Amino acid sequence: MKLSAIIGLVAAIPSAMAVWPIPATFEQGTSNTQTYWVNIETQGRTSAIVNGAVNRYRDIINKENYLAPVDYNRGILKTSGTLQSLVVSVESTDESLGIDTDESYTLDVPVNGKATLKAKGPYGALRGLETFSQLVTSNGNSKAIANTPIHIQDAPLYTHRGLLFDTARNYYSLASIKRTLDAMSYNKMNVFHWHIVDAQSWPVESRTFPELQKKGAYGTDQMYSYNDVQQIIQYAKERGIRVIPEFDVPGHTYIVGQSHPELMSCVNKQPNWDKYAAEPPSGQLNIAKPETVTFTNKLVDEYTKLFTDEVFHLGGDEVNRNCWSEDPDVIAYLAAHPGEDVESLLASWYAKVHDHLETTGKTAYTWEETLFHSEYVPKNNTILQVWIDQASVQQAVSKGYRIVSSSYDSLYLDCGHGAWLSNWDGNSWCDPFKTWMHVYNYDVAANITDPAQKKLILGTEVAAWSEQIDETVIDPKLWPRAAAMAETAWSGKADASGHVRTTAEVATRLHEQRFRMVGRGINAEPMQPLWCARNPGACNLP
Amino acid sequence: MKLSAIIGLVAAIPSAMAVWPIPATFEQGTSNTQTYWVNIETQGRTSAIVNGAVNRYRDIINKENYLAPVDYNRGILKTSGTLQSLVVSVESTDESLGIDTDESYTLDVPVNGKATLKAKGPYGALRGLETFSQLVTSNGNSKAIANTPIHIQDAPLYTHRGLLFDTARNYYSLASIKRTLDAMSYNKMNVFHWHIVDAQSWPVESRTFPELQKKGAYGTDQMYSYNDVQQIIQYAKERGIRVIPEFDVPGHTYIVGQSHPELMSCVNKQPNWDKYAAEPPSGQLNIAKPETVTFTNKLVDEYTKLFTDEVFHLGGDEVNRNCWSEDPDVIAYLAAHPGEDVESLLASWYAKVHDHLETTGKTAYTWEETLFHSEYVPKNNTILQVWIDQASVQQAVSKGYRIVSSSYDSLYLDCGHGAWLSNWDGNSWCDPFKTWMHVYNYDVAANITDPAQKKLILGTEVAAWSEQIDETVIDPKLWPRAAAMAETAWSGKADASGHVRTTAEVATRLHEQRFRMVGRGINAEPMQPLWCARNPGACNLP
Repeated sequence: MKLSAIIGLVAAIPSAMAVWPIPATFEQGTSNTQTYWVNIETQGRTSAIVNGAVNRYRDIINKENYLAPVDYNRGILKTSGTLQSLVVSVESTDESLGIDTDESYTLDVPVNGKATLKAKGPYGALRGLETFSQLVTSNGNSKAIANTPIHIQDAPLYTHRGLLFDTARNYYSLASIKRTLDAMSYNKMNVFHWHIVDAQSWPVESRTFPELQKKGAYGTDQMYSYNDVQQIIQYAKERGIRVIPEFDVPGHTYIVGQSHPELMSCVNKQPNWDKYAAEPPSGQLNIAKPETVTFTNKLVDEYTKLFTDEVFHLGGDEVNRNCWSEDPDVIAYLAAHPGEDVESLLASWYAKVHDHLETTGKTAYTWEETLFHSEYVPKNNTILQVWIDQASVQQAVSKGYRIVSSSYDSLYLDCGHGAWLSNWDGNSWCDPFKTWMHVYNYDVAANITDPAQKKLILGTEVAAWSEQIDETVIDPKLWPRAAAMAETAWSGKADASGHVRTTAEVATRLHEQRFRMVGRGINAEPMQPLWCARNPGACNLP
Repeated sequence: MKLSAIIGLVAAIPSAMAVWPIPATFEQGTSNTQTYWVNIETQGRTSAIVNGAVNRYRDIINKENYLAPVDYNRGILKTSGTLQSLVVSVESTDESLGIDTDESYTLDVPVNGKATLKAKGPYGALRGLETFSQLVTSNGNSKAIANTPIHIQDAPLYTHRGLLFDTARNYYSLASIKRTLDAMSYNKMNVFHWHIVDAQSWPVESRTFPELQKKGAYGTDQMYSYNDVQQIIQYAKERGIRVIPEFDVPGHTYIVGQSHPELMSCVNKQPNWDKYAAEPPSGQLNIAKPETVTFTNKLVDEYTKLFTDEVFHLGGDEVNRNCWSEDPDVIAYLAAHPGEDVESLLASWYAKVHDHLETTGKTAYTWEETLFHSEYVPKNNTILQVWIDQASVQQAVSKGYRIVSSSYDSLYLDCGHGAWLSNWDGNSWCDPFKTWMHVYNYDVAANITDPAQKKLILGTEVAAWSEQIDETVIDPKLWPRAAAMAETAWSGKADASGHVRTTAEVATRLHEQRFRMVGRGINAEPMQPLWCARNPGACNLP
């Protein structure tokens, strides 16, 4: 029987392909292939990234002895062939990693003999290795790959499949960050948006202004040295993950005032901080003082070198006008400069900082307020991060901007945990909790039909703001919900046939991915009683 | 200076007493006492329980090197005396543990010399040891007890300070149960309500009906043998924690039908399970069949022996009438018995089961529906567990029943996590999330003024229903929120002066307890940014 005939037979059973995120296109057969110790070899010139990944996945696959919950009473698969090895090859050994990096790959697993993984570049090979690892399942005392022969051609829909990670409200150890990067790679996520500083702490080393971390880190044991940052960037790169740092200015900067009070406005106003900031402690860089531009630009100079990604996030969210309109320096400045106001001051401040960033060769990434809630007009190549309003996605792309969405209403994974102010037992501002189904149902491209505008959607980011999170709880906060976004960002909302996947359809596969992650040391939370994971369709609302 | 004078000086600063839950009465001085390796000795006859606890706390205290977040920049305390040892003595060595067990203790820590802990019985000594352990803080290279001399007289307000732990929706390892019991003891909680079986699985060994666990446990690696149960009971007892098992009948019993289909009604009705049960899978013991009484009573015979506590929980919640009114056996029975109906059948069924429990000498514990939503009249000594309606607390005590409240609206720690049915992205039925402030603000005795009725309130229980929880996430789900209930159940809502404590007042102390728990290996989640923990009052709503 020819391969195409076999494939034709089972094409109607896509659920047998349990890979998460689901590959763009795949074909399966009806045989099963035995595997023992799985050998992975490379062919031709590869790269350190590929070689490292081959070693990593050889370990993962051979240590893993995994059976999906739905297969708990499957019994032993009858196999009709044996996998000899997986042969990995890449067309290019270019290890640069950025917005345009190709992550496509082709994977073929025959019933018998050698499987092949071919990619344009190293990062496609990484994605294919993850896919291959998910095909191998426990089979009695050995292992097997079911439904061979398998042919997969895969590539992501979006180039930006990110996680916003906040190390300022609470600190995270390097180990927990690396574990998170591992987990991201298991879901083919590729952007670690490191919201590294905020009002509450400044955990990252500065060599330009060492007093920032000295007075701003929670402790010498709660900070990131240059070496730590470089380690994280390298660890991420080895998993095909870009690290985009965010230095949020001019708001969310109370902590700068611990070492540079002269740069600040409205520092820690109490008890009515809510007039000056979205959360305590209040404090913003004083936009009437040219020194704050100099200070910020020096930080940009320093950190655009430390952080190697082509994109650099300048924050710009939740800027509070009262903070400045009541500031004596701002008042004095405006009195001396008729025709100016807080808005023009802010626009001019943004221009100086964004202009300076441009001289470093980096692309600006900024919260949507910089465009929608200020008079500044971001440069054309600026990437806008939309979080407040889904309509902003449409408006931003209609203005020609590239966007990433981390819609608070769908992708803020910290939400729904109640308020955290000590004296109030109310809800959180972004209630309710975002279930994995809610995350999965989010469509960043909703109502955008113009192909040119669609192209401006770079992707999505889940966010884990850390007011109520630290490393004790980060794993179950992120997983498996971040995985739900990871699939919609990699595979899109619809199958190749145009069918929009429903959460009922994908639940079994996500259960499988969740238990796989737990087996790999990620404390992903359970989605349902195990009984439901074992009985697909039995836990649906009628 | 006399002790009383010193105490007079600082009586207005109760916040210096950082013990959680706060002792009923305490006095502090203004000195500090140095401690090195802390020795704990016993005086007079003690008991294995006390000796075990002494060893345990000697380890905890000497390994711990703890400084509360609020003290991060405190510097070294100047000490004016040295602690020689802690001397523990008990009046009675009676190790029996039940509703009436005395947990009171008196603890004196002088500025210099030996501290003394005196208790009526072993369990009071345990509570005092926990208090003592919380007084010791890191002090540079050594340790210290601040604000000596200290005199504490302490006893709980309520006798029942519980946690409902559900091992049926998802399984928990013995290690995670023991860790939970440890955490309970750090908060002076004393009842582990083991909701051990439910519709989804039957993880506990039965020797009367071994087919129950054979067909009902999630796996041979996901069940509790007799030995496991006995280990848990012993481990709990060593920490002053009673284990009350719940065998929920006649609802929530789908899993019985896996081995005893002949006993069941409405087994796994699909897709419209919601007509027959609160959640899938549906299934109830068939109350028209006398065999279900025999079956239940045999289980009662078996498990009242395995579980040694004087109280035994018979469930009785969320019974669904449709399940029976559409059952052919029930229909046939009612046709043959004019004058009877589903309600009378159910009342008679409860009577037979509760009568039988009485013959074992145990006290019945049952969900409020057994009283309020059935025609059965529970025996006078039955303990009712109220969860639906706060008004039920008043009604139950006015009828003379003892109650425990696990108000879903305040004490269900699993709530607010969204719905978990695969095809629906809505909220959970018991939204929103119960913050620690909301838990703390719950008053089980609200609007009950009659002292005789007040006495019928045995206490409170937080519940961790496990549809969306297993051991990956149990620690942060429970802690520190369960600790919030633990304080209100031990210390009451008000100080000795009558002042009702506010969450703003206790936040710093709960932060301290949370970080202490993390240090002891409990993954309690953070309440706020660390900055807030270090800056009391700065994170309040104006």
